[in-house]
Parts: sequence; C-alpha cells; structure tokens
Amino acid sequence: MIFERIKTEGTAHYSYFIANSGEAAVIDPRRDIGIYLELSRRYEVNIKYVLETHRNEDYVAGSLEIKQFYPAEIWHGPGLDWKYGNVIKEGQDFQLGQIRINALLTPGHTDESVSYVLTDTGSGETPAMVFTGDTLFVDDTGRIDLYGTKEASRLAGNLWDSLHKKLLPLGDGVIICPGHGSGSFCGTHIGGRDESTLGTEKLQNPALQFKTRDVFVKYKLAEKIERPHYFTYMEKLNLAGPPVLGKLPAPPPLTTAEYQRMMEKGAVSVDTRIPVSFGGLHIPNSYNIWLEGLSVFSGWVLAPDQPILLTVEEPGQVERAVRALTRSGYDHLAGYLRGGIEAWHNAGFATEATYQLSVQELRHKLENKEPLTVLDVRDDAEWQNGHIRDAIHIYVGHLESRLNEVPRDRPIAVFCNVGYRASLGASILQRAGFIRVSNVPGSFQAWKAAGYPLVFGVD
Amino acid sequence: MIFERIKTEGTAHYSYFIANSGEAAVIDPRRDIGIYLELSRRYEVNIKYVLETHRNEDYVAGSLEIKQFYPAEIWHGPGLDWKYGNVIKEGQDFQLGQIRINALLTPGHTDESVSYVLTDTGSGETPAMVFTGDTLFVDDTGRIDLYGTKEASRLAGNLWDSLHKKLLPLGDGVIICPGHGSGSFCGTHIGGRDESTLGTEKLQNPALQFKTRDVFVKYKLAEKIERPHYFTYMEKLNLAGPPVLGKLPAPPPLTTAEYQRMMEKGAVSVDTRIPVSFGGLHIPNSYNIWLEGLSVFSGWVLAPDQPILLTVEEPGQVERAVRALTRSGYDHLAGYLRGGIEAWHNAGFATEATYQLSVQELRHKLENKEPLTVLDVRDDAEWQNGHIRDAIHIYVGHLESRLNEVPRDRPIAVFCNVGYRASLGASILQRAGFIRVSNVPGSFQAWKAAGYPLVFGVD
Amino acid sequence: MIFERIKTEGTAHYSYFIANSGEAAVIDPRRDIGIYLELSRRYEVNIKYVLETHRNEDYVAGSLEIKQFYPAEIWHGPGLDWKYGNVIKEGQDFQLGQIRINALLTPGHTDESVSYVLTDTGSGETPAMVFTGDTLFVDDTGRIDLYGTKEASRLAGNLWDSLHKKLLPLGDGVIICPGHGSGSFCGTHIGGRDESTLGTEKLQNPALQFKTRDVFVKYKLAEKIERPHYFTYMEKLNLAGPPVLGKLPAPPPLTTAEYQRMMEKGAVSVDTRIPVSFGGLHIPNSYNIWLEGLSVFSGWVLAPDQPILLTVEEPGQVERAVRALTRSGYDHLAGYLRGGIEAWHNAGFATEATYQLSVQELRHKLENKEPLTVLDVRDDAEWQNGHIRDAIHIYVGHLESRLNEVPRDRPIAVFCNVGYRASLGASILQRAGFIRVSNVPGSFQAWKAAGYPLVFGVD
Amino acid sequence: MIFERIKTEGTAHYSYFIANSGEAAVIDPRRDIGIYLELSRRYEVNIKYVLETHRNEDYVAGSLEIKQFYPAEIWHGPGLDWKYGNVIKEGQDFQLGQIRINALLTPGHTDESVSYVLTDTGSGETPAMVFTGDTLFVDDTGRIDLYGTKEASRLAGNLWDSLHKKLLPLGDGVIICPGHGSGSFCGTHIGGRDESTLGTEKLQNPALQFKTRDVFVKYKLAEKIERPHYFTYMEKLNLAGPPVLGKLPAPPPLTTAEYQRMMEKGAVSVDTRIPVSFGGLHIPNSYNIWLEGLSVFSGWVLAPDQPILLTVEEPGQVERAVRALTRSGYDHLAGYLRGGIEAWHNAGFATEATYQLSVQELRHKLENKEPLTVLDVRDDAEWQNGHIRDAIHIYVGHLESRLNEVPRDRPIAVFCNVGYRASLGASILQRAGFIRVSNVPGSFQAWKAAGYPLVFGVD
Repeated sequence: MIFERIKTEGTAHYSYFIANSGEAAVIDPRRDIGIYLELSRRYEVNIKYVLETHRNEDYVAGSLEIKQFYPAEIWHGPGLDWKYGNVIKEGQDFQLGQIRINALLTPGHTDESVSYVLTDTGSGETPAMVFTGDTLFVDDTGRIDLYGTKEASRLAGNLWDSLHKKLLPLGDGVIICPGHGSGSFCGTHIGGRDESTLGTEKLQNPALQFKTRDVFVKYKLAEKIERPHYFTYMEKLNLAGPPVLGKLPAPPPLTTAEYQRMMEKGAVSVDTRIPVSFGGLHIPNSYNIWLEGLSVFSGWVLAPDQPILLTVEEPGQVERAVRALTRSGYDHLAGYLRGGIEAWHNAGFATEATYQLSVQELRHKLENKEPLTVLDVRDDAEWQNGHIRDAIHIYVGHLESRLNEVPRDRPIAVFCNVGYRASLGASILQRAGFIRVSNVPGSFQAWKAAGYPLVFGVD
Repeated sequence: MIFERIKTEGTAHYSYFIANSGEAAVIDPRRDIGIYLELSRRYEVNIKYVLETHRNEDYVAGSLEIKQFYPAEIWHGPGLDWKYGNVIKEGQDFQLGQIRINALLTPGHTDESVSYVLTDTGSGETPAMVFTGDTLFVDDTGRIDLYGTKEASRLAGNLWDSLHKKLLPLGDGVIICPGHGSGSFCGTHIGGRDESTLGTEKLQNPALQFKTRDVFVKYKLAEKIERPHYFTYMEKLNLAGPPVLGKLPAPPPLTTAEYQRMMEKGAVSVDTRIPVSFGGLHIPNSYNIWLEGLSVFSGWVLAPDQPILLTVEEPGQVERAVRALTRSGYDHLAGYLRGGIEAWHNAGFATEATYQLSVQELRHKLENKEPLTVLDVRDDAEWQNGHIRDAIHIYVGHLESRLNEVPRDRPIAVFCNVGYRASLGASILQRAGFIRVSNVPGSFQAWKAAGYPLVFGVD
Repeated sequence: MIFERIKTEGTAHYSYFIANSGEAAVIDPRRDIGIYLELSRRYEVNIKYVLETHRNEDYVAGSLEIKQFYPAEIWHGPGLDWKYGNVIKEGQDFQLGQIRINALLTPGHTDESVSYVLTDTGSGETPAMVFTGDTLFVDDTGRIDLYGTKEASRLAGNLWDSLHKKLLPLGDGVIICPGHGSGSFCGTHIGGRDESTLGTEKLQNPALQFKTRDVFVKYKLAEKIERPHYFTYMEKLNLAGPPVLGKLPAPPPLTTAEYQRMMEKGAVSVDTRIPVSFGGLHIPNSYNIWLEGLSVFSGWVLAPDQPILLTVEEPGQVERAVRALTRSGYDHLAGYLRGGIEAWHNAGFATEATYQLSVQELRHKLENKEPLTVLDVRDDAEWQNGHIRDAIHIYVGHLESRLNEVPRDRPIAVFCNVGYRASLGASILQRAGFIRVSNVPGSFQAWKAAGYPLVFGVD
Repeated sequence: MIFERIKTEGTAHYSYFIANSGEAAVIDPRRDIGIYLELSRRYEVNIKYVLETHRNEDYVAGSLEIKQFYPAEIWHGPGLDWKYGNVIKEGQDFQLGQIRINALLTPGHTDESVSYVLTDTGSGETPAMVFTGDTLFVDDTGRIDLYGTKEASRLAGNLWDSLHKKLLPLGDGVIICPGHGSGSFCGTHIGGRDESTLGTEKLQNPALQFKTRDVFVKYKLAEKIERPHYFTYMEKLNLAGPPVLGKLPAPPPLTTAEYQRMMEKGAVSVDTRIPVSFGGLHIPNSYNIWLEGLSVFSGWVLAPDQPILLTVEEPGQVERAVRALTRSGYDHLAGYLRGGIEAWHNAGFATEATYQLSVQELRHKLENKEPLTVLDVRDDAEWQNGHIRDAIHIYVGHLESRLNEVPRDRPIAVFCNVGYRASLGASILQRAGFIRVSNVPGSFQAWKAAGYPLVFGVD
C-alpha cells in the first residue's frame, strides 16, 4: 500500500494519497493538484476516487481539477445540494486492490462531514487507519461554530456522537489521519505531532476527556476562533464546483513602471516579504502579508475579483505565492515586480519604511510614558492569555472596518504574537493614512522572553 | 515533531529521522547517509543521536559516517563488545526538545536488540510510537535463527517475552515503526502496508495469535529463511565499526577495451539489467543481478575484496548500483561500461545471449517430453508452495557450490518466482560453462497465471 | 544578454532563447515549450517574439503554444499562405533592450527561409551572431530537395546566393547558430561541434569550398537524403497552425489486459527499448523504435490518427517518448504498459523474441554458406560507403511497402549501421509474419571493427 | 564535442568544460567542483586535463580538488615556482578524441598567462575557439597592475604583443572564451554579452583600437581598478596549492544563544540579506555583505582565519554563501543563525536598524542644508563619472582603515551605485560606533533616475 500525507503550508491542510494495485484515491485534494499528478506518475497509478470529508471552507477543493486528468469519481457527504460529484451512503465502500475504504458519516464539524475507514484486507479485517477530516485532530476536535451561534450546540452534540459512537469504537489501534495539522484555523490547539491513534487520543486529547455529552457541548461552545471572511466564499465555490484552472497561473514579471500603472488603475499591491524586510523599505500602499500567511490572511483584506500585484523577496517565491492565493480562490494575479523592491528604489520611485520597534524600545517608551498607542491585533484567546497594559485590542482581520477606533494623534506600535500579523496591521494603517506607525518584531514572544510585565483576562 | 521514514530498496530496510526544536535523532542509519544530511539541512537541525536497534546483519551501518558531519552520540544495545559508540541501559532517555525517546531492551531477534519508545510530552505521557527494529514487523516478527540452531529456541523464547511483556503492554494505540518492510530477508511474510499499531498487530499479526510461549517457540523454530553469506561479514563490520567512506564512491566510465582488460585481470562483471534485456545480449562471464537485488544477492556470489565492474541499462543507474553495493560492504567498484552493452557490441567484441523460454514453450517441451532439466532456484518455502513436477531444486544462493548436481547433458531451464533469481542462476551456469541454458521469464507467476499444473510439498 | 541553445534529441533540432532587459525572443520553438517557459521564469522575462526561420518540416512548431502563455508576436518568412503570425520584410528589426535582431531573407533550403542577425548595440554595430535556420550548418548546408527534383536546381542556386551574397558578407567574426546539429535529416554531414563562425565555415565547410555557383548546384543535386513520409504532414500543420496542446499529454498506465484489448481494437504497440532488450522478449506485433529515433522513424510507420501504445524500459521514459511523438504530430497516445515487459510475461501472456545475431556468428554463417538473407536497411549513401556482399538493400523507411522483395524461404539477418534501424526493420518483418528474423547488433560498426570484408559502390 | 561554460556569480568568473570521446578538460576550475563532477557523470567522461590560464588571483583554484576524484594532469604557464602540477611549453598539445588543444603563451595580465587554442580536427585545421583567460575579454583586456606600478608598463607592452602577435593572428573566425564576464574585478568594462570572436573584438573592443603599442600602454597605465586585499592571499594559495576541502563545508544551524556566544568569543557576524532587509533590523555588530558580493567584498573586511557566522534570508542561501566564501579561501565557517533574524528578535535579543534614506529624502535634506555627511564609497572611476557635491569619497574597501576621516558629529548618509556597497559601508560605521548612519537605497542610480544634480571629475 502506498500512503502519502501532503501538507499544505499556511492552512496547515492535510490531504492524502493512497494507492494499491495501480489505483489511487485522493482525500481532500487542494486546488494546485500537481503533487497528486506527480505521485500518480511516480507510482504508475490512475486516480480512481476523490473522497471529500466535507465542504471545506478554508481552501478551494481540487476535485474538479483532478477530473481534467483522470476519469475519477468524486464523492461527498450527504445533505448539501452538490453541483458536481456523487453523494455517499453510510458504509459505502471503495476498493483499491486489496485496500478497502468505507465511508463513516461523522457530522459535527458540519452536517455533511464524513470519515473514511481504511482496511488492508491483505492483513485482515481490522481497520488500520481512519481519515477524520475536521472531526478529530491530534489533541483537538473540529470547530462547531461555522453555522452560527444558533446551530452550534446542535453541531457540538453531533460531534460528541460522531466521536464516541462512530470513531472511538473503531478500536484503539486505528491510526488517525486528520484534515489539518498544527496552525490551522479549523482547530484551536492542534498538536505539533502528526502521528497518532484513536487510542492515544482517547487518553490525551483534551476534548475527549469529558465524561458527558453536555459538558463537552459547553466546552465546545466556549471555544473562540476567528472566522475569516473568505470562508463563505470558499463554501460557495466548493458547493457549486470551483472554476477549473487546469494549470497554475503564471503572473508575468512587470517593470516598475507597469507595476505603478496597474496600482493606479486599482490593482492591489501585496508584499510577501517578512516584516523586518518590509519595514526596511516598501512600495507605498502595499499590504504586508508573509508567504505562509497568504492563504489565510488575504481572505480578510483582498476581494476575489481585484487584480493582485506581488512584491516578493526573490522570484522563486512567486510560485509559492500563486499557490497560496489560488488555493483561496484569488485567481486575478496581474503580475509581480521584476527585480523586487530593489528595482523599485533603483528606478527612483517613491518608497516608504515602517519602523521596527524592538520590545526593549517599546518597554522604554512605555515606562517613560511617551505618547504611544499599543495596538494588539491578536485574537481573543491570545489576548486573554496575556497582553500589555493599556493596549487597544482589535483583531487584525477586523482592523480595516474598525479604523475609527484607532487614535490618529500619536504614534502607534502594532503588536501581535511574533510581529507578522502586526506588520499586516501596520500596513493597513499606513494605507489608511496613519503616520508614525511601528511594527514590534517578536511582539508577544519577545516581550515575554525579555521578562516584561503582562496583564491577563478580558481587560 | 518532524518524522520521516527512509525506505531502502532491495533490503527493504527502514530507517527513521525524528527531529524537534533543532535537534534530530536517526534510528538505524544506512551507510549512504546523504538523505539524513539532506533532511538535516532542510529542517535546519543538528543530528544529536544515532540510535541502533541492533547490530544489523543485512547492511553496513551508517553511524560512523554521520559522525563525520555531526558530533552525534551513537548508542547500541548491551551485550556485545562494541568498538565504537556507547552502550544503552534499560529505560535510558534521549530528549529532542519536548520529544522523549526511551530505550526498551527487547532481546529475541538478537540478544542486544533494543526498541525505542517515543513520547510527545507536549501532548502527554502516553507513548506515541515505538521503533521496534527487527523485533516486531507489520504482520510478522523477527527471525531467531541467526545464532544457529542451538540458540534459536532460547532466542524465540526471549522474543515472546519482549513482545508480550515489553512491547504490547505499551498500549494498543502505539504506532509501530519496524526496521523492515515487505521484501526483507529478516522476516518471512512482512506485510505490504507500513502503517500499523500494537493494537492492530495484536489482532492480526499471525505471530501474535499464539496463546503460549511454547507454541510460539515451535512456530518460530519451524520458520525457514535463507541466511545470505554476507550476513557474517556485515555483523563483523558493524561490531568493529565499518570503514568510513565520507562520500559515495563514483566508479569511472570505462571503454570496452578497459572493461575487458580488467575482466582479464580478475575483476568480476555484474550486469544489472533486467533478465530479458540480459538475455538479449550480454558480456560473456557476467553475473546478472537486477538493481533491487544487488544489496542482497551480491552477498551470495561476490567476494568483498574483488574488484567489481558494472554493466547498466543507462548511466543514471550507476549511482543506484553503487549505493546498493556499498550498503553491503562492496567498496571495490572498479568502473562501469561507458555506453552500456551497445558500446560493447558496436566495438565488435564477443557477446552471449540467454534464451528467454516462455512458460508456453516450457509447457510444450515438457508435454512433448523433450530432453530438458527444469532447475528451480527458489527457497524452501516457495518450493513447498508449488513447483513443476520433476524439477531439480537448488536455492540460487547455493548454486555455485552445488553445480555438480546439475546435469550437463541436456538443456536447462532455470525457474524461480518471476525470473530474476532464475536469470542470476542462468548466468551462474553460463559462467560455469553450461550451454543451452534458458531463463524462464515470469517463471512461477506466469506458469500459475497460465493455469499449468503444479505439485506441492517437499517432493 | 542571455543566450541559450536548446537541443532536441532525435531530430537534432536547435532552438534559441535570447533575452535582454526583461524581454525575450525564441527562435524556432519546438512544440513542448516547457523549457522556454522555464527559462522565462528563471530569467524573469516575457517572451516578446517568436521568430521562425522557415516552415519547419521535421517537427511541429511550438509558436502557437507559446501564445497560450505570452502575448508574443510570431514572425515568418514571405511567400507562403500562413494562417497565423506575421510575414517578415527584408531587414526588419526586433529589439530586446539593447539587442537588435534583423531579418535577412536567405531562400535556398526553402523559398521562405529567413536568417536572423543579432547585433549587441551596447558593444557596437558589428553583427555578433546569425541564426541561420537550415541555410547553413556547421560543416554543411541545408538540403534543397524538399520541393522535388524540378525545383531542386533553382533552390540550390538560391542557396548559393544566400550563402555568398547574404551570409558570408556579414563578416568572418560572426558566430553561427544553425537550426540543426549532427544527426539531423536536414543535412548529410553536419559536424559534431556546435561552436562555429562564418570565418571558420568559409575555410572548412566543404559546401563553401566551391568556386562557382554552377559547381555548387551540381554538388547539391548529387546529395541523397531520405525524406520521411511525415515531412509533408509537418509542413501542412506548420503552415495552417498546428493544434495547440497547452500541456504535455500524459498517457495513462495500462494493465496488461487493457493493453492487449487496445491492441485488438487497432492501437499500435511501439516498444522503445534498445534492440538487444527488445530482442530478449517483446509483445508480439510491436514496432521497435528506440527513444531517440521516435521523432524521426515513427514518421515512416505510424499514421497520425492511430492510437499508440508504449512499452518502455522504465516509466521515467514515458515522458521522453511523449515529447518525441508529439513533436512529430502524434497526439493519440492511448497509454503505456504499467510494469513494462515484465508485467506482461508475469501475467502469462504470449511473448516473442528476436535473436540478436552477432557479427561473429553472421560472418561464420556466410562463410559456411548457410542459407541466410542479409537485409541492409541503411540509406543509399551509407550503402555505397560499404556493405556486405550479396546483401539486399531496402531503406528501413520503405521496407513496409516493399516486403514482397524480401524472400520468405530462409532466415533473414537485418543489418544497418549499429543495429537500431535494423531492429525496427526486424520488427516490421515479424509483424508481417516473417519468421527466423534476426537483428545484427552493432551491424556495420561491429562488422568493420571486427575487420570483416565489405564491398563498395552501387552494387 | 561537448562544450559548457560555467559561470560563477560574484567574481563573474568563467570556467570551461570540454569533452570528446569520453575524455574531458576543465579550464580554470573553481574550488567548489561539484559542477564539473556532475558534468562528467552526465556525459560519462573522465577528466583528463586541468588547464590553468594563470595563477588566478580572485579565487582559489579547484585543480587539486579535481585530483581527489580523477587522475587528471594539472598544467600551468611557465615562470612561477609551482608547488603542484606541470609547466606548459609553447605549442604543447592536449588531445580529447579528435579535439586538439594547444597552449599559446600570452603574457601581459601576468607573466605566466597562457591561452588555449581549440581545433576540431574532425572538421579541419582551422582553430575554432580560444580560451583567453584574463588576456582578452569581450569589450576589454586584462588589467596589468597586479605586479605594482613599476612592472605595469612592461606588462602592458607584453599584453599588446600577446594580443596582436599571438591571438589576433589566429583568425577573425575564432570564438573567444575569456576567464571573466561582466562584473569582474579583472577588467573595467567587460561586456554584458558572452558570445564573441576575435573578428568582432578586433572591430569593437575599445582596447584593440589603438594603432601603436605605446598608445596602448599609456591607455592601460591610466586604468584604475581597486585591488582587493585578498588577491595576495589567493595568489599565495594558488601557487602553493590550496588546502583541499573534498566536499563543501556545511556550517551547522545555531540557536540564537549559540550565535551570540560565538560572537562574544570573537567570531564575526556576516549578514547576507539585501540592504533594505538588513536596514529593517539586524544583529548589532554584523557586516552587511550581499550574497553575490561575498566572494569579492569579504576580501576587504574579513581575515581568513577568523570564524565566520552567517545570517541569511532563508536557509537555502547558506550553501550559496558557503560557496562564495570558500571560493575566496574563507574556510572557518562556524555556523548560521537557525530561523534567521526572526528567531533573533523573537528571542528578545537586542537588535539594531539602519535607516534607508531615499534619494528624495536625501535631496530634501541637502537642499534644506540639514547637517549631514554624504559618504560616497564607490571607486575612483565611478566617482569621476558623477557624484553629489560636497560628498566625502572613501572607497568601501578602504573605509575601515580610514575611519578617522569620517566626521562623527553629524548624521551620515552612505552612498554608492545602488546601495549595496553603501550598506556594507554603513555596517562598518555602525560597528565602529557611529550612530545616525543611513544607507541610501538605489544611491547613484536612483539619484540619476530622479534627475538630481551631479558634479564630475576629480573634485
């Protein structure tokens, strides 16, 4: 049996490629399907099945892309008005040589959520692995708030049932293959190790330690996870069948003059360099979203139909940026700056800097009571786990719509966990005409490492 | 946690690379360590530990090679007079950031066999994985005959204890990471799937289904696996510390004239092409050992100090051949034939063919009672599971020392499972002056697929 | 200035990629344009021009493929009814930053043939390089027989004028960049070195040593080069604009049963392994065309609309085979045999061998006057430069239409230069029901190396 | 004939790989010889000759490294007390199949300078190419000042003789293959195109337009090129035979704490990020030398025996940095910062920024007569071709020894051609305790593009 886990950076999304006797199945393919085609060629197999665990909300599904290359069957869970593919029944089986995969309906994260149980009939009838989608993660379970507050408690109850009546009874020895790893927006504290089993989770997963359904439901309802704007758009695309790309877009290199002209005509400039580099010098009016954050944070600030311009550290990163953006449905990639920021400044074009205020300097200013707003753009859970006294708290995803809450009369130091979201926040402020905006590199991590004081709770 | 399984073709050997917080451990490294160095660079980690599960007998250990690049500690099991590295104690722990690895002495396959239990203390104190070396495989357990018949029953008993008193008590949910996969000489029927757990093995592994120690011991004593000559040599090297290569040898391309001259001076020609290609035309006096078989079958016919010449299908395969040979301690690689077999025949040098006798033709000749010896070179277990009536049975590894048992007065059709070992057998016969030697491509598999008759048992 | 020569195996076709200041031109692109896209990405340039030296007859032009990715202008020479692109004027210039490329009409090989003169205006106004298409090669000039005998003398005269009145006057120091290297069907004795200049060619190129136009015309008219069937098809495609592929086709892996079924339904099996491997064992009714020969020799035996099945040495060669076939307009690639010839024989399917008769054996049989036909399938020029007495001579490309000239009552040894075309010839005979067919590996080269007797001339 | 030009970034050094009939020659190999080994494997050839054009002064020769892998002969020009290899005689020939290479003594750049003339005897006796080392470049000739002022005029005369009596007489059609391309310190204005011939150079190369030896000598004596400190060290190494590495060093990833500790113990931190990124934030006391500048500018500020620490943009650049440094003899590479600058600031360690002063801001400050020193660190020729009025001029290579000439009482804006050397200059000043130091990104190019005023001449 061939088994490959394909990790997608940024969304921390996991898809799986399983093959046997010349036939393959892909579970939850991403939109840039090159990796599945490559695996198919390497192992000389044909993709026979695409199995979706649910209507994914954090990326565009690659199922229809695969159909451009293989006459594969696409399968979804029941209950949605799917515009493509087939709807699965409980227990339905899919055969790859001696490998059997059975559908197990596991609603909770969403109503149509399915898990897939893999049995190697060459060894016996014991289930060997289960693909749990967003139902069960290592150290965590799927979020249940996607349908809104009214449905959350119903979903949480369903999730308990799916976990305790469907998954755990498969047996302690079953290896779990979740839809996400550490870093995803689909869980709150997914573990940093990918290898686990139902037995291990039963003993250690905090969400599986509750004795009753009710307590579990309360626990789930108390979870707070931001829900990026683009989730709604993804859900719509994935239900209807997203536009098929066929191949990865290749935005052309642009001269500085072309880049500037396109900005003037309404294209948005996204600078994917790390904050300290962006801070050193950048094109005015650019957003700063680091490469790994593109899939997720673009969803808060970019419109799907707006032409996007890229400034990257080096041209090899264009492809990574393109993958990240198309995974989230951003297909209007107008070009990238040939020669990078240096071409821009060498051409004598106007530039802008964002000062990188070290935690030492920040501490010094606060102690000396210099006029300064600390703007903390982390999420609620992070904020409650410790923040700087008197900071303002607005989640980075909401900043553009709450700019009026940020005072314009004094310097602002934007703060997050390590300085990435803070730099996006700083770039949002600079685009909005704020001046004297600093990013705090290292932010919370550096502040804590330096032993500086924090306050806790809702504040 | 970073976890990588490195599969080595031919020996079906598995080594593992585990890393966390900038530090890595390698379990049972092979001799061509490029892959571990590459992983270290990719993940920006330093190799801190090399953990050996036992004095491996089927390949040269790469531990000392790693020490050329990293100041790593090498650890072995107790009881042998190791000339390098350190000796482990029961329970001893090794830390990689929040990952803890504990030694678990599990004698049985050999006396110094150790397993390594991995716990991710970031998630809890439940063991997550266990590296079982040659103690426990998917669907199989390690062989216990390496010390000879007198010790086998003691080892089998120890193995039972290690399995039932040490490993299984770790818990059903523990993922197993064995030292070998399907195809290895260290087990008889290792499964074709790599993902398993103690729980799954407890339910399905045939060797774990016995109720008592005694029955298990009997079962193990009845196993028959060939023991390649080179095992002894490997054991000696791995105890003393094998010669360090530092980098992969690069045998030079040779002209046909140079190749011939070296053969005349005593170098041995090994042709790694597939049997039907070798059969079409080859250099007289060459052994035919296919690429994936090199690590294992060279051990039966080549001497470690004899210069080796290679004829390959295309030059990209030289590196694969070199890896395979050096893994088994063959370091005297004198060169390879530039331009392959075609350069040879274009130069007007003498050539030889080996007729590829199809199973249809073989069946026809046998039915017509044409004079013909069928020589079956498979192992005992395969032979007993079905063979052609009146065939002679000599395992390919023993053929060179039992040539006198093969009649010279009539054509010989060499037969194995699919025609690979048979082609090695045919080349052994041709080197020994036999004429009218055929290989049967497809051999047992084709014969069976065609529905031709078989006899069973010891015959 | 960026300058890259892209060599295409088989047809020995050369295309060129020139770039400066973010803009690139491609001269004579092949159909699988991945390499030009990759170069564009690597150097961060946009392809602005596709410059064709003539309506190429030995491969499908990639110009329209490039237009799928870049808004490039396509330019052709005058005099043909082009269905796409633009028609060039004498002297017309194309600018890539400081690099200027000028068109120079150089009819002769064909009427619309153009050369392109490159000047680096950053250094001065001296022409630095000239892209000569099929007008001038290293050590050779283009063939003039493509329009048939009646036009040949007119074309040869034009060629003289283009060489002596257009190209050579550019200056001795101008580097030449021809459309082909050694091995092409577009010249008879193109040199094995690619680096040359007008000055060097003037001194050494045999075709430039004639004092008068008339003598040169006679010399050209005496040249004999085979004209593959598929040239006509290529010419038609390249004039009308070939079908756009967008991406390289990926024929699926087939099981033995699927492969056989497709053969029964009319698909043709092409085995791309080297002759001695094909000889060892192959699928009955397969053509044997080696990988590098596919582009050229498929054109003699395969119909463009016939589904093609591939048997390859190893799956990595499928892509090479696909490139070669699509370059020659073969787009109906039905699949390839998963697991190669071994899967076939292991499944117990019928097989066929072709004996590889060494030159030693051949010589022995001829001396002993054993009944045997030697069938020489080389071209006229090769035949005249030495052949075996009493051999039959039919060029491999004509063999299928002249099978009635081959005696069926005795064994046949097929012979060529090294055994490649001979093996294609042997496979043609076996498909046509001939039995006792051998290939002579090494053929003429081995025969000569062994010092065996030859006769010369038209015979 | 196989011909490959290997370009080395930074030094713009060109080496060449020529092969024929299984044998290869390498001309002027660099120290990291992986590329030659790879070419040898790809083309299945053995390296037979290493031909040095002179005792190169700008990089460590790789000749002895090659001898670790091939039994190659090393050849040098006459007149030096070489401690390895052989000394060549005028006209001496080297054969690679039908390719003949002849030595042509061409003193001038140095006394032992040799050119190598390549003739393809398969085509004729006309020389096809000449490898000119540092004697003749595209658009330029080699510098003649390496022996100091007293010898310069003798060398310039010799160079004239070599050019006019040795090289040009080879014929206009001979392709030139020089030892450097555009960007090297071994010429002043080498052209940006690599393809040229003696004929083209005769017409266009400014240095070949002088009518008499005397005028040429005067012209050469007037040339001003900086001579990096490390040239002397390279010359010594290359004469004696440099230490053999055998493989590329792999500096380990270091934690922030380890990195800091090593700095405290005397290791020097080199930050290879581009100036605007370095400016955003960096480790105090680091030099800023961009990747492509490492080979050359390290030579001015680093001592060969000092341990070097690297901070890079992303770990993939460590290898490039290592290559650059070892090419210039820096072998003590103590490690690189794991996780880059972000790991540093996340750990709460002290940081430093360098303000990136745009040309607009600079212009504004100068017009407003704000107190500010403009420090121009370009070379003499650049300075004379235009600079900002009242700037101070100290070449970057001399800055550390002339710090006393830089006023400490006011802000300093460091200025060069595009801001790279200026950033190195700024980092030198910051290390020396200067505060209020800015780099001017884009520097001269941006200033000129913006149309701001310049003064010219010696000033």
